[in-house]
Order: sequence, then structure tokens, then C-alpha cells
Amino acid sequence: MEQKIQVGIVGATGYAGVELIRILLSHPSAQIAALASVSFEGKQISQVYPAFRGICDQTLVSVEDTISASDVVFASVPHGVSEELAVKCVEQGKLLIDLGADFRLEAEKDYKQWYGLDYKHPALHGQAVYALPELFREQIQAAKILGNPGCYPTSIALALAPAAKAGLISPEGIVVDSKSGTTGAGRGLTQNTHFSECDEAFSAYKAASHRHTPEIQQTASRLFGCPVALTFVPHLLPVRRGIFSTIYTQLVKNVTPAQIQATYEEFYRDEPFVRVLPQGSLPNITNVTYSNYCDLAFVKDEHTGRLILFSVIDNMVKGAAGQAIQNMNLKFGLPETTGLMLVPPAI
Amino acid sequence: MEQKIQVGIVGATGYAGVELIRILLSHPSAQIAALASVSFEGKQISQVYPAFRGICDQTLVSVEDTISASDVVFASVPHGVSEELAVKCVEQGKLLIDLGADFRLEAEKDYKQWYGLDYKHPALHGQAVYALPELFREQIQAAKILGNPGCYPTSIALALAPAAKAGLISPEGIVVDSKSGTTGAGRGLTQNTHFSECDEAFSAYKAASHRHTPEIQQTASRLFGCPVALTFVPHLLPVRRGIFSTIYTQLVKNVTPAQIQATYEEFYRDEPFVRVLPQGSLPNITNVTYSNYCDLAFVKDEHTGRLILFSVIDNMVKGAAGQAIQNMNLKFGLPETTGLMLVPPAI
Amino acid sequence: MEQKIQVGIVGATGYAGVELIRILLSHPSAQIAALASVSFEGKQISQVYPAFRGICDQTLVSVEDTISASDVVFASVPHGVSEELAVKCVEQGKLLIDLGADFRLEAEKDYKQWYGLDYKHPALHGQAVYALPELFREQIQAAKILGNPGCYPTSIALALAPAAKAGLISPEGIVVDSKSGTTGAGRGLTQNTHFSECDEAFSAYKAASHRHTPEIQQTASRLFGCPVALTFVPHLLPVRRGIFSTIYTQLVKNVTPAQIQATYEEFYRDEPFVRVLPQGSLPNITNVTYSNYCDLAFVKDEHTGRLILFSVIDNMVKGAAGQAIQNMNLKFGLPETTGLMLVPPAI
Amino acid sequence: MEQKIQVGIVGATGYAGVELIRILLSHPSAQIAALASVSFEGKQISQVYPAFRGICDQTLVSVEDTISASDVVFASVPHGVSEELAVKCVEQGKLLIDLGADFRLEAEKDYKQWYGLDYKHPALHGQAVYALPELFREQIQAAKILGNPGCYPTSIALALAPAAKAGLISPEGIVVDSKSGTTGAGRGLTQNTHFSECDEAFSAYKAASHRHTPEIQQTASRLFGCPVALTFVPHLLPVRRGIFSTIYTQLVKNVTPAQIQATYEEFYRDEPFVRVLPQGSLPNITNVTYSNYCDLAFVKDEHTGRLILFSVIDNMVKGAAGQAIQNMNLKFGLPETTGLMLVPPAI
Repeated sequence: MEQKIQVGIVGATGYAGVELIRILLSHPSAQIAALASVSFEGKQISQVYPAFRGICDQTLVSVEDTISASDVVFASVPHGVSEELAVKCVEQGKLLIDLGADFRLEAEKDYKQWYGLDYKHPALHGQAVYALPELFREQIQAAKILGNPGCYPTSIALALAPAAKAGLISPEGIVVDSKSGTTGAGRGLTQNTHFSECDEAFSAYKAASHRHTPEIQQTASRLFGCPVALTFVPHLLPVRRGIFSTIYTQLVKNVTPAQIQATYEEFYRDEPFVRVLPQGSLPNITNVTYSNYCDLAFVKDEHTGRLILFSVIDNMVKGAAGQAIQNMNLKFGLPETTGLMLVPPAI
Repeated sequence: MEQKIQVGIVGATGYAGVELIRILLSHPSAQIAALASVSFEGKQISQVYPAFRGICDQTLVSVEDTISASDVVFASVPHGVSEELAVKCVEQGKLLIDLGADFRLEAEKDYKQWYGLDYKHPALHGQAVYALPELFREQIQAAKILGNPGCYPTSIALALAPAAKAGLISPEGIVVDSKSGTTGAGRGLTQNTHFSECDEAFSAYKAASHRHTPEIQQTASRLFGCPVALTFVPHLLPVRRGIFSTIYTQLVKNVTPAQIQATYEEFYRDEPFVRVLPQGSLPNITNVTYSNYCDLAFVKDEHTGRLILFSVIDNMVKGAAGQAIQNMNLKFGLPETTGLMLVPPAI
Repeated sequence: MEQKIQVGIVGATGYAGVELIRILLSHPSAQIAALASVSFEGKQISQVYPAFRGICDQTLVSVEDTISASDVVFASVPHGVSEELAVKCVEQGKLLIDLGADFRLEAEKDYKQWYGLDYKHPALHGQAVYALPELFREQIQAAKILGNPGCYPTSIALALAPAAKAGLISPEGIVVDSKSGTTGAGRGLTQNTHFSECDEAFSAYKAASHRHTPEIQQTASRLFGCPVALTFVPHLLPVRRGIFSTIYTQLVKNVTPAQIQATYEEFYRDEPFVRVLPQGSLPNITNVTYSNYCDLAFVKDEHTGRLILFSVIDNMVKGAAGQAIQNMNLKFGLPETTGLMLVPPAI
Repeated sequence: MEQKIQVGIVGATGYAGVELIRILLSHPSAQIAALASVSFEGKQISQVYPAFRGICDQTLVSVEDTISASDVVFASVPHGVSEELAVKCVEQGKLLIDLGADFRLEAEKDYKQWYGLDYKHPALHGQAVYALPELFREQIQAAKILGNPGCYPTSIALALAPAAKAGLISPEGIVVDSKSGTTGAGRGLTQNTHFSECDEAFSAYKAASHRHTPEIQQTASRLFGCPVALTFVPHLLPVRRGIFSTIYTQLVKNVTPAQIQATYEEFYRDEPFVRVLPQGSLPNITNVTYSNYCDLAFVKDEHTGRLILFSVIDNMVKGAAGQAIQNMNLKFGLPETTGLMLVPPAI
């Protein structure tokens, strides 16, 4: 029998961490070697999350022990912390898949502007790539550090890519109106995620100033082949999981809906995790929750010449843990779908 | 003691109907004369809605009996039905406040295009006005039939008006991304409002093809003074009440946020139901539910030159029953706030 | 014009505090004189709760200033704190209506056992009464300090009273299974009221060990005229407001459902806030939310000889702020319904 | 390679049907041979449930075609219909696992009393067993027809069994207060599962008259070895999945909590799907959703001598589809856990 990939998770008790655990527990070619948590070291993960009782009762250990026990380290830690982790992983020859923001931005000035920090180890960033497999698969193969994409940016990049690459839409005037479930805000307690104040509520937040903006623009710029400035407004949905992005673009080619549909279907023909819905259907976050799927659809607004794109993912899966495992599979030469053909519950 | 306004409600067991009842029960100068319901005639309203037990146990009667008992008739019936009702009300000299779509559109061709019906009594429409008090107060005074605005259009018109009238924004390129609670879909049962399928779900619907589009454009055109074509995409929120509209516009004047703020505050200085939030705040639907308030805010996106507007109302109150009662107050010479200073619960 | 009652609220930014404000803002004979908050002193209440913007923008002041400005002080503070407040109120001749636990228990040993504190001012407790108006109206008239009942105990006492007083049921073997919305847990942040962990969740808590147990037993003992020991298990519902108590009792008299119904209707004939539902109906928390009603129903289980009682209230209104204002009305010689005929929204 | 079990589902578009599909899609030793639906015959299952798009696009066929294509038939159809299906399955030598009520009750008089129907094929019932594997594994081996237990009864029987069998509790005076998510009510539209009326709502229904009562009592009688009459009151929770049963029993032996804990742990030592929580923990429905687990806990109420039991399952999994597949595994000689080690999401 083949050796399984030994996986370590740093930040194991955060939401992305426990979602990694959920998926890895059913992965046929990987196993959890060690789990690190600063807040709960010494406790069992199932004491923190009783859903795992009897399924995963591993004791939470230190970051150092986790790195040394692992072939690959998933990190879900505050920005600024991953860089230090990366130094250690690279030294020990371990792959680092970072679910945070430290390795997503190519321009240090963007990182500095949006996160307020300088790169402490600039050389490291040359070994890192932005790891959205459907769009940048080749670069991922060679890298030692993967910057796993953010949840909003994933939903947006996958929707924009076919139309942008085919030159159907303008790089100018794009508006992205996204809505996310509360798990995107993590385990930390806040007044606006307190049930009594979040239930039956709905609002925008960080309008035109969310930190995912430079990441969204960076990928859009790569797709269009020119600098893109767009407007991004996220909103908080009173649901646990799911991101819904409504993207307003301007058509620059005279194309029929059937041609647009064909462009999208062709682009994602061989991608197991992207489902282009038939014309007339719109996606719903419930159709992808707990799975690694991204469902895409569009409407051509004849009235204004706009192409409106609709994209849904589970922010915890394709938007975080699932995509990270997809990247692990890719790096270890496994089919990307290994352990990831999670069926979204129909109800 | 003064005579109270005698109020009749046709379609009393629909959601707009029972919301009218809820508010009228505390109105100091009006009283419910009669309630009509086709489906439940002969039953008590409190048998259909047990929340009203002991508070309003009136028996549901016929439309005819309701009209003759009333000074003002509120109608919440399917489109096409209100016209017939209007004939009877005008004959009997009763004011009709129609919460449906029959008297909202000025151009018969729009009605025909979006609702598939001709006007059966074209002359009637000359006696009707579009009744959004904050914007069209003077016209309302003279009319015999009031077309009470739709919920989405109310939230959008109030947000656009100050910037449009002041010439701050372009009439072109406007995108409206709205999100509504489920009561907007009414009492009728559907699969997508079945709790097991609606809870934890989120989707767009009727993207760029919703029937409120011509009404939204009609008001925008009046505000800008030129024909406006815009993109409108509504979404269904898993909450009961509230509409949140995010409106993306292009600035055409070089104004500071402080100047925009001043424009909005000045415009609504004397309007008791519109609250312009201080800069830096964004509205939340929970802050207006059960009340007649519309909360407004904006963000200037320096990056793209856009003015992003945020507007929230309770779709059942300012978006339906509350605004209808505000119109009644206006028509009967009462302060518009009479019976409408409903305090939104803070939690 | 008559002088309005001057009201002060200590703990004004807690959930019970803002619910008092919501109701008092529409009270015709009372007005908010001062609001005290330790955490937010100097801020406006509408900065903490933006729902109140433009409606109540009062600045939060000190406890001392609040007491001196008021005829009646409502206190919603942690147990142990109210006693000190009571000293000051009694000294200054101000009525204290305490929404906490300090003045609910008659036996100091119960307070000590369940709250771990001694009485610091035992004499004060002789001036205090347990203030559930429907059951103990006469005692309330004479007292200087009112212990406003807890939310669970209110729902349970009102359900048990008619059957207990009429000797229909046994004081032994009573089981109370209650379910409460999250506002009952207050504004403080906890992991189990974090939206991502509370939504779609359901559990019991403090089973057979909740601090409301001695209060429930104290009232049951008064109703039955003998010491009552019962089992009380509360559960946390993923809704914001409402308590639903299912109470299992043993019948000791051979009575028909019609006789039981008559007993309940007779008992509450003159009580405006208690609604005995017709046979065959069961209450629902949505029928009383935002109102001061308690809806009651029962089922006779012929099979086991049990009388099952069902009781619902809004924990924030009849279970806290509403009942406190009902007590204020009673003390100041107003009809108890003054400012409290709040209509529960039908949807 | 071994032949996979060919599975047919009758009533495939009901909620239990699509949950069977979800689980079977990942089952290593079974595959879906055919899906029958009266309402949607000719359509693809993924047209009815778009979550399955690209994963299971099978076309819905007739009942006859489904039976003939299958080794085992799962039926999720209205009561009265399964009997006819059973005739055909037995004739063709196919195992029938019935998720409805037709084969759960041993006494025809109970079926007649609670469901209003006679047995049309009484002989069939001799070939059927009540199939709760943890309690009645041996009888299941020999049967041709399995009556898959109801959701409430499963949660209750698993909680009662250890204490009842060990003689710790009395068969008299048992009270069961259960709470279920809305999927238990199925796909059919009703006013009380309409989102606008179900969200933020909570009520009991069919108190002391629910059809699961005779099934609950039947199993309790087998466990205690004497006829048991108990009180059962179900409630509707505003969540999609999960059943929480709180069971009030009277202790008849002088046992410590540690002894009770030992009794439960010993009883379920070898059962992979039952988790006895450590003392001091209470179960939560979120810890078992999407999985086949039943989490159990208890509290000894020293005050009243009661043993309070707490039991949670996912009504769609251990309460329906998961347990049915567990039964299939058992019948086909597979480990019961095959395809059923579903990890409940921690968040």
C-alpha cells in the first residue's frame, strides 16, 4: 500500500482549519499528521468541536511539531504570520499552502497598502504563486509556496475568466456585488455576527474598501491583459455558508446568449468543479454548499448591453479548504478530484 | 370628538392587507370599517391570523360591502383586478389607494409590455397618480386614485433622488442590485419559499426582467429629466422583512463626500421618514423593520469615480402598507406621520 | 396637561434596556428622563443602536444622574448590583422596578444557593414584592421595590395558575420543557450565540440546574399552597424572540376538556394580556412577538391522564420590559394597558 | 471486481429519496440502478434538484422499471402505497426497505387506529420486521421486508434502551418532548412551512396525537418487557435538519451518574453510530447533521429523582435514509458502516 500524504494544519481550530479536517477525514490518499492551535494546544480537537467526537480526537500540538510531522502544511493564520511559517517550511522542504493573504498579492506595494505591512522575507515571494487551479494550473506545479485564493476572489475570477479571455466584455466599468455567509467572518465573536443581531439582518460592509479588492483586480488584470480597476462591495448574508457574486459587465462584442453559453461551456469543459448552468437557470448557494463546486450562469441584458454574471461557491470549500486540498492533489500528482467529489446535499 | 376615517381593505388576508391592519389598529384618526377577502369571506381575520385574536376579530365580507362602508379603500389584489375596483370607488366617491401595479405606470405601453394587459378603462388612469409622497406630494393632493409605489422602486427612488436632482450623477450606466425578504413574495406557497429550501439559501431571480423595472425607470426618468435605462437585479434573502438596495452610479461632478452628505441631508431635511446616515455608517435592514423609515447612506469610490448608494426599507411598511397609510394621511389633511411613528425594534 | 412619569433606565444598553426604550417611546403618560450605561456613558443611545436614530438620541449618563432625574427607575443589571441601587432609590423615594434576580426570591437561602450571594441589605427585601400583576396584583400596590419576574417563570406561572388554583392538577410530577429565543441570553457575546454556531442549531442547557428553577417553584408553591419540586429544562431556539413552555402535569380531577377550557377562560376573563386559545389551537411564538401577550392552550392526554399546558410570551416584552411597564402603570394608577396595547405583527 | 448492489428508489424526488441518492453516490458497494417518481417521470433528477447537476443526472422512470432493475428497493411513499409495492418486490425476490409507516407497527389494530387503514395483505406483514439495527439486528437478518423506523421513534428508542434494559427507570410516567427540523415535514408545501411564517416561529403540533406514538410505545414496550403508555409531544423547529428529543423518566434504582454513564457506554460500546457524550455535555443537532450519528446524554435530576435523557439525530440520515442504507448493508453482508462514515461538518 502506498504511503499517504502526511498533512499538518496550522490554525486547526479556526473555521478553515476544521473544514480542512472534515474533508481530509474522507480523503483516500492523505491523512492528518498533526494539528496545531495556539489557543487550544493540549486539548483534543473534538473537545473544541464535538461534531468530531470519535472521528477525529487528535490532540492539538505546537506549530513546530506540526511542520516536522508533515509533507504539506496548510496554514490558516492572521496575515503577517504566514511569512514566518513559510521560512520554516521552505527550510525543511515542506510544501506550504497558505489560506491567508500573505502570498496572494504579486505587488508588495498592494500588500503594504491594503494590509499595512512590509514583506519581511521578500525573496520568499518569488517562490510563491497565486494558486487558483482552473486558471493558473501550470504555475502551481513549480511553486514551493501556494497562496490559496480568497473566497470572494475565487467566485469572481471563475465567473469573469471565459468572457474576459474571449474578449466579450470590457475591462472597464465592472461592478461586483457579492454576498457572503457568516462563516467567512470566522470563529471570532463580534456584535454583528451575534445571533440576535445577525439573524434577520442584512447589510453591506467595507464597501469599495475590502481587502480582497486588490486580489480581485490582480486576477482580472491577468485575464484581460491590462490593468483593471473595478468596484467591489461585499454584503453579509444571514446564512452560514456560501458566496453569491453578481457581476455587472459591459459587452463589447455582438454575441447571442447561445454564443456566450458556448464560450463558457467550452472554457470549463474539462474542469470537474465548475458547472455552467443551462440558459435560464440561476445559481443558488444551497446547490453548492459542503461541496467544491462553483456554479456559473449569466444573463444578457439586451436593454443596456450588459452581461450579468452569477457565481456561487461554498466559501469554506471552493473558497478555502476544498480549493487548498485541490491544490495539494495537484502538487502531489493526484487527480484534483481525489477526496473532493463531495455531493452537495439537495436539501 | 372628530369622526374617524372609515377604512376598507380589499385583499385583507394577503400580507400587505394584514400589515395595513396592524398599523391601522394603532392609528388615532382612522378605523377599520370593513375587510374583504375572496378566499376567507365569512371567517374572522383572527382565525386566519391568530396574532390578531382579541385585537381584531372582524368578519371578512364582500368587496361591495367593503367599498360602501369606507371613505378610503386600500386594495391589495392581483394586477388587472384593481381597475374594476377603481371604477366602483370613483362612482361612489371613495378614494382608492391601490397597492398593486395597475396605477403605477404612466405609459399604457409599459403596462402592456410588462403585465400583458391593456387598460380596460383608460380614462381612469388620468385620475390616478404615482404616489410616492417624498417626491410627488403635490400631485397626490389632487388625485382620486393613488398608485402606491412598489417596494423595490421606493427604496431605489429615495436613494437616487437627491443626487439625480442635484446633477451629481449620470443617468447612464446605473446598476441596481436589490435584495428582498420573503414577505415580498406574499402568502402564496412556492417551492423556493418553502422553509426547507429557502432557509440558508440565496439567489437572484428575474434578473434584468423584473416587472418593477419600468416603474424604477419611470421615476428615474422624472428625476433626471431624461429617459433612463438601467439594470435591475433582485435577489431573495432568507429573512422575512426588509429590502436592501445597492445602487451603483457614476459621478459627473467633482464633489467631496462632505458635499454629497450635505446634498442628501438638505434634500430630506423636512422628511420625517427618511434618515440620512452619518458618513461612515451603512444601513441595515434590521434598523428599519416594522417601521416606515427609509435609511440612506453612500460611499464615494474614489478609485472608479462611482457614487454607491445604499437604501433600506421594510418592504411591508414603507414599501407597502406604511406608505399607503402615509398617502391616506396626506389625502385626508392629517400630518403624514399620524399613526406612523412606529419605532423599529433595536433588537 | 398632566405631568408625565419621569422614567430612568439603568443598564439602558442591554437588550431589556433598549426594549424598555422602544415601548416607552410610544407611552402616552411616561417619558424617558435619563438613561444610564456604564459601558457607553457619554455616547448617544442611537450610536449604540442605530435603529433609534432620530427617534431617541439621548446621551447615556451616570447611574446617579439617572436616579435623581426619575420618578421610577428600571434596572437591568447583573445580580448583586440591584441591591445597591435599591438603597439609593428607597432613600430618594424613587420606585425601583428591578428586571434582575435580586428581588425575586423570598427565601434568602434560595438566593444564596442559586446565586452564591448573601443579602447585603436584608431589610430592603421586606419592602420588595414579586411583581407578576395577573397573580399578585394586590401586593404590588404597597411595595417600594418590585422584583420583575423572569421570562421563563412568567410563561410557566401564567399557564399553571388556573389549573393549580382550581385543584385540577397534582403539585407532584410536573415537568417543564421550555424553549427560548437568543435575546434571552442578552447582548454579551458567546460561542453558542455566534451566528455560525447558533443558526440551524438546537440544544438544551443548564438542564435541571437553571437559576430560574427556585423562582418557578416559589410561584408554583404559592399557587398550589404547598411546596412544589419540579423539573425544568430550558433549550436555546435559533430565533431572536419568544419563549415556548410545554408543561406536563397530572390531572387529579375528572374533568372534560370543556371544563378545563372554562376554568382557564374564567380565570383570565378580565386580564387584557392573557389570551386563552380556543380548544384545538396551539400557540406559536410568532403570534405574540413584539407584544405583551401571553397565549395559553392545553391538551388533555386521555391516554395517560395528563394535562399538557402550552404557553408563549415574547421574552423581551411580557418576559421583561413589557411586564415592567405594566407594573409601572399599576403603581402609578394608570390602566395597566397604557402604552402596552402593542399589536403583534401577523407576519 | 465485485458486482455492486443495484439500488432502486421509489419516491426518489421526495426529501428522503434525494437524501438516499446523496449518500448512495459515495457508497463504494452500491449504485443507483433506477429512480422512480410519479410526479416527475421523464425528467432528470438534477432538473428537480439542481444540486445534483453533473453528479446524478438519471432520468426518473416508472415504479415497475425501478423494481425490475434493482436488488433492493427503497420506498418513500405515502402510507397505504407500500403494501402494494411489497407484493411486487416479494414476488420478484427483491428486498424492500420501506421508509414509510406500513411495516412499522406489529399490531394491525394500531395501524388501523392511527392510519385509518386495514392491512390489504396481512400475510406480508409476517415477512416484515421493524428494522432498528442497534436494537433488533438479529430479526433483520431473516426478513424480506424491512420497516425502516420513523425519525422521532429512532431518536427516542436509542435513548431509552440502555436504561430500560438495565431496569434503571420506570416504564410509567415517561414524557417525551421532541423538536424536529422542517425537512421532517417533507417537500409538500404548507402554510406553516412557508418561510415567512416558519422562520422565527416555534410551536408544538399534534400534541399527544402524533402517528409516531404507537411506534414509540411499541419499541418501549419491547425494551421494558411490558406495555408502555407515554406522552409524546412533537414541536417544529425553524431549522432544516435535526431532531432533538428530551425524555423525562423516573429512576427506580439508586444509581450514581457514573453508573448511569457506564451503563450507556457499555450498551453502545460496539455501535459505530451511537455516541454517548461524556458527563456534563449535552448534545446539539448541529453535531450530527449530514451524518448517521445519534448523540446521547443524560442528566440525573437529584431534586426529583428523574433521569432526563437527551438524544439527537439528523432526521434525514439516522432518522431515514442513513438508517435505511445501514439496513441494506446489514442485509447484504457488508459492514454496517459501509458508505456511512459521513463526517458531520463542525461548522
